[in-house]
Amino acid sequence: ADASAAAYAAPAPEQKINVVSLRDIERQAEKVLPPFGFHFIAGGSGDEWTLRENEAAFDRLVIEPRFLSGVKTPNPATSILGSKLSLPVLASPMGMHGFAHAGKEAGTAKGTAAAGSLYVTPSVSNLSMEEIAAAAGAGAKWFQIYFPEDPGYAREQLQRAKAAGYTAIVLTVDATSFGNRERPAKLGLKPPPHLGFGNMPKSPALAGQNPDMQKKDLTFADVAFCQKESGLPVIVKGVLTAGLASDCVKHGCAGVWVSNHGGRQLDHSPATIAVLPKIADAVGGKVPIIVDSGIRRGQDVFRCLALGASVVGIGRPLLYGLALGGAQGVEAVFQRLRTELLMTMQLAGVASVDKITADYVAPAVRS
Amino acid sequence: ADASAAAYAAPAPEQKINVVSLRDIERQAEKVLPPFGFHFIAGGSGDEWTLRENEAAFDRLVIEPRFLSGVKTPNPATSILGSKLSLPVLASPMGMHGFAHAGKEAGTAKGTAAAGSLYVTPSVSNLSMEEIAAAAGAGAKWFQIYFPEDPGYAREQLQRAKAAGYTAIVLTVDATSFGNRERPAKLGLKPPPHLGFGNMPKSPALAGQNPDMQKKDLTFADVAFCQKESGLPVIVKGVLTAGLASDCVKHGCAGVWVSNHGGRQLDHSPATIAVLPKIADAVGGKVPIIVDSGIRRGQDVFRCLALGASVVGIGRPLLYGLALGGAQGVEAVFQRLRTELLMTMQLAGVASVDKITADYVAPAVRS
Amino acid sequence: ADASAAAYAAPAPEQKINVVSLRDIERQAEKVLPPFGFHFIAGGSGDEWTLRENEAAFDRLVIEPRFLSGVKTPNPATSILGSKLSLPVLASPMGMHGFAHAGKEAGTAKGTAAAGSLYVTPSVSNLSMEEIAAAAGAGAKWFQIYFPEDPGYAREQLQRAKAAGYTAIVLTVDATSFGNRERPAKLGLKPPPHLGFGNMPKSPALAGQNPDMQKKDLTFADVAFCQKESGLPVIVKGVLTAGLASDCVKHGCAGVWVSNHGGRQLDHSPATIAVLPKIADAVGGKVPIIVDSGIRRGQDVFRCLALGASVVGIGRPLLYGLALGGAQGVEAVFQRLRTELLMTMQLAGVASVDKITADYVAPAVRS
Amino acid sequence: ADASAAAYAAPAPEQKINVVSLRDIERQAEKVLPPFGFHFIAGGSGDEWTLRENEAAFDRLVIEPRFLSGVKTPNPATSILGSKLSLPVLASPMGMHGFAHAGKEAGTAKGTAAAGSLYVTPSVSNLSMEEIAAAAGAGAKWFQIYFPEDPGYAREQLQRAKAAGYTAIVLTVDATSFGNRERPAKLGLKPPPHLGFGNMPKSPALAGQNPDMQKKDLTFADVAFCQKESGLPVIVKGVLTAGLASDCVKHGCAGVWVSNHGGRQLDHSPATIAVLPKIADAVGGKVPIIVDSGIRRGQDVFRCLALGASVVGIGRPLLYGLALGGAQGVEAVFQRLRTELLMTMQLAGVASVDKITADYVAPAVRS
Repeated sequence: ADASAAAYAAPAPEQKINVVSLRDIERQAEKVLPPFGFHFIAGGSGDEWTLRENEAAFDRLVIEPRFLSGVKTPNPATSILGSKLSLPVLASPMGMHGFAHAGKEAGTAKGTAAAGSLYVTPSVSNLSMEEIAAAAGAGAKWFQIYFPEDPGYAREQLQRAKAAGYTAIVLTVDATSFGNRERPAKLGLKPPPHLGFGNMPKSPALAGQNPDMQKKDLTFADVAFCQKESGLPVIVKGVLTAGLASDCVKHGCAGVWVSNHGGRQLDHSPATIAVLPKIADAVGGKVPIIVDSGIRRGQDVFRCLALGASVVGIGRPLLYGLALGGAQGVEAVFQRLRTELLMTMQLAGVASVDKITADYVAPAVRS
Repeated sequence: ADASAAAYAAPAPEQKINVVSLRDIERQAEKVLPPFGFHFIAGGSGDEWTLRENEAAFDRLVIEPRFLSGVKTPNPATSILGSKLSLPVLASPMGMHGFAHAGKEAGTAKGTAAAGSLYVTPSVSNLSMEEIAAAAGAGAKWFQIYFPEDPGYAREQLQRAKAAGYTAIVLTVDATSFGNRERPAKLGLKPPPHLGFGNMPKSPALAGQNPDMQKKDLTFADVAFCQKESGLPVIVKGVLTAGLASDCVKHGCAGVWVSNHGGRQLDHSPATIAVLPKIADAVGGKVPIIVDSGIRRGQDVFRCLALGASVVGIGRPLLYGLALGGAQGVEAVFQRLRTELLMTMQLAGVASVDKITADYVAPAVRS
Repeated sequence: ADASAAAYAAPAPEQKINVVSLRDIERQAEKVLPPFGFHFIAGGSGDEWTLRENEAAFDRLVIEPRFLSGVKTPNPATSILGSKLSLPVLASPMGMHGFAHAGKEAGTAKGTAAAGSLYVTPSVSNLSMEEIAAAAGAGAKWFQIYFPEDPGYAREQLQRAKAAGYTAIVLTVDATSFGNRERPAKLGLKPPPHLGFGNMPKSPALAGQNPDMQKKDLTFADVAFCQKESGLPVIVKGVLTAGLASDCVKHGCAGVWVSNHGGRQLDHSPATIAVLPKIADAVGGKVPIIVDSGIRRGQDVFRCLALGASVVGIGRPLLYGLALGGAQGVEAVFQRLRTELLMTMQLAGVASVDKITADYVAPAVRS
Repeated sequence: ADASAAAYAAPAPEQKINVVSLRDIERQAEKVLPPFGFHFIAGGSGDEWTLRENEAAFDRLVIEPRFLSGVKTPNPATSILGSKLSLPVLASPMGMHGFAHAGKEAGTAKGTAAAGSLYVTPSVSNLSMEEIAAAAGAGAKWFQIYFPEDPGYAREQLQRAKAAGYTAIVLTVDATSFGNRERPAKLGLKPPPHLGFGNMPKSPALAGQNPDMQKKDLTFADVAFCQKESGLPVIVKGVLTAGLASDCVKHGCAGVWVSNHGGRQLDHSPATIAVLPKIADAVGGKVPIIVDSGIRRGQDVFRCLALGASVVGIGRPLLYGLALGGAQGVEAVFQRLRTELLMTMQLAGVASVDKITADYVAPAVRS
């Protein structure tokens, strides 16, 4: 395990893996990944307070099951913006899957499709959005964009995305300054030579741009640009306040994505589960809410849905699954969550995901 | 200590043991039990949050003693559904005592009877309910059932239970999906060859069933079935909400058992002591309340009774006592709790268990 | 360091010691004391929750200093029941000082007097109350009693105490059942041969009694007995509720001593600083309040006085001082507290102890 | 690394350093500093509760960013009492920089000026205030004073300060008794021979005084003396209560400095961020508020400004920077904070420091 490209390019087997839990595979992945790769994925920004808080905040909420409800086999299926999902969990966009596995985003996309879920392709991918779309096949897929400095490059990406079959655009708004992810520097770890961007500009006029260079002074005008140029539904990702959620609804966004970027952007921004209830109030059911950052258990999925989410997003665990077993590893991560969610729903006495309400959740410490 | 049946079948001496505390014998038992056996017993489900919270929640409540009350020797005796108990503590049902000791459930039942307490025989036992009843002798005993898929098998078990002298049925409702107890998998531990179910169906028509196969879509109709087919009082075990407690009273249940299965079923369900007060409100004294999960001290028994329980159940510590000294070890666990409860009552200034009220308990942190 | 009497009888030097802090000398004392002696002193009962909470509860309160108050040299002197104290700290009664030092209670009494403080002689002492009184010399002194089964023995002790020059009786009410102090048993430590009780009965009619055998069913009649037979002011020690505090005032007690016996009696009883405010409300200034259990810093003394105490008691640190330097070690502990209290008062801007009020204290976490 | 003066006088290179974070350089500095020097700087007083709480209190507040605000490049510049600052962070006064680096206060002053910030010269410096003023050059500078016993010596210092070009006086009021900083004693560390005071009295009439000997019974008369004798604006440093803040405004102070002396004076005084809101209420915008103690991140600067501070002060990290790279190390610490503050402002959507309001901050745990 070192910083050479070879360490990352080594053929990793496609294989079935046993996922005891999404927390357990983090430990497993650490054993097989090059140290930089692992810590780039696992780390957060700053003091990693938000990273830890994302998980800790769930511990402040208990699930109150309703036994004797007569539920035999709950149905975890749902749909979002017309896409059917076999469970209310999708793949959050994450850059540079080549740090995890030689299969790169194609492996993650393929595994996600195999699990019957929706893949959100990152603009900062190692493969091109067209390659990734092909890997996802008939699977549901959205395209995530960091809005670039040059609107022409934005237009190019949006049009390519639509042409490649992506059915919605996810505009990330919480990364206009790059988060201070300090782990590699503190541990003295070096990245491998660049693994390549899959979505470099095609038009000669855009030479010199890359998908990691984004516009800093984003406004809703940029949201409108995405809506207009893609002709697709646009979801704003990075919502942490009720105010922004309301504004998204007002500006015709197709969805609100509650996220703190997995604790990788502004450290000391709040845990998503902590702000979800007031955002759900603000949205008032007008558009679907996706939430990610810190979800590791079926019980976490359940609690997010109870507090107003339509679907949750999973990040790092998918890369660990990818590292350990390629597309099959990714699928196994979804399956583990499905198993836990089904167990939670069955024990809680909930037959379908639309019936998971706030009545099933309470503060762990009652005053 | 390994995974062979022999490791579990080794004759363990019947002997007096010194129980410094119920927490201390967990450490002692770990030294003598095969690793799988120990971790199967000690572990909880998922992240073991509920397992830890069961004990931690007690730390949020203090006991306010009333000195100078003139109490010399408190009386810990009580009764429940007509059974007299020498202390307000009974043996919670736990499966597979063969993991702890070659004496299996007979040892636990015998030790419980020797302590003057009530034994709740698990349906998923290694010995038969008749063998266990014999071991309990004149001791009070109830039969716990996981309601099986086939009502005929339910009927058989209920009728056998009544015939064997059990005086109440405990229907467990919180285990319709099996909890994800991950310790053995994470630690790489293997179970021994199956130690056998004591309550396999006797009727040829029920061949292929076993007591671990239960109906998932339980409702109060199944409660009624238990009531009717056994002719015995039925207690619902696994109550965690006021709503279910009220429904139990409404449907003629003889008791409400507040439990989260010792943190072995739905992880992130609440600590029992945290939900007990509102359940007690809902029950309003109409039927007795049993509470278990996390009780390790006489002070815990006292706090449960103060907040509305009639009797508490003890689980894992009995298996540790069994592992360390057979029936005598079990009895010693009850005696240790009795000693601590008497000390607590005497110091608190309470003469009898019915006088233990919420006035003696307060939040540790006052706002 | 072993369990022989010799390990405890070894001549320990009388010497000046450097007390960095009362917490630091616990570490120092552990190095010189036989293990049983150390853990007997340092330990608490049960899970030692109350032991820890006694100190942790102080961390929930901050001191708000008033700078620019023009205070040069605060005066820490005070008085209680007619005894003058050079600082608002006295020596709480503790049994068996022979576990700490060959000088036994005489060393502690002498060091306390040298510090200008008040010594509370324990009935369960290794030396006799007369020997201890002699060691204290002109120093202020009270006698603590565990009310014995036989009132004749109570009378004998009370009359001896008055004759020996003790000026008040402290009746301990929180130890009618012996606390389950489990450290030695858990650590496998054995006590030395009995070091002897200094206050064995003198009357032949009381043969067979010893000062450790106490009446369990104490009431205010026993308080009245102490008042009448000694003719001295009587203070009730072990008050943890407003109700008992009010009753003490009503029954003519000369003081109320808020204590949980240093976390050595009923584990999970509240921290004294947590219950002090409501007890102070109940007492309403009618009699002095003493508080002990967990006080380790001048800031702790200050916070207790701010919340209603007249004087605080110190326990274990005095035994550590005794172990490390005999009477001079004891005096050094008082001096360290005096130094810290003076620093706290000067910085807070308080000229005298009667001016330390609740206005100087606030919750650490503000809602 | 030992206690000799040589260990401290060793020429330390002036060099660029890489500051991953202000927390990270504490670990780096520990490697290069003599142990006494490091622990003298890093430690706090008493149990170091306030030291820890200063940082922990920030974790109870989250930042709620407003994405899509259209902010490209925030402006961190500000001014205070007529001095322009390139960022809202200044150098808190700390004594004896010779413990950190042979360049002493000149290095810190030079680095602070290079960063475009304001240097507060400590009266207890190793170099003279004139040498330090020269090192700061055109950089903004204030002079901090411990008011001495002899007013003549106060006058001398104040007049020297004005003559040397300092533009404000900072009167520290929280150190009239020296805090019990126990680390060196507990660790058995010895200081080097005295490195010398730079501000010894010049008038023969003041012989025997030194800048560490201060008046204990300070009042607002001493504040007035500073105002009158210096003719400069006077800021009171050490304010922890709303009452003192109001009084400062009433007595014509030019600013209020909220500080607990970095947890080095009265342990168990509150975290500054915890008391800042009510102090800001009391000040009502009439004078600027400086706050220090525990600020380690751009997010901390942001939260202080949000809750009412005009500027924050940084202490220990500057000495770590000095130890690692002299003046360049000091400058690098400011640059790291600037980078983090800019990132925080840009992500939060705030264009300038005056727009950072309480609307951007919320409790981490919502009830």
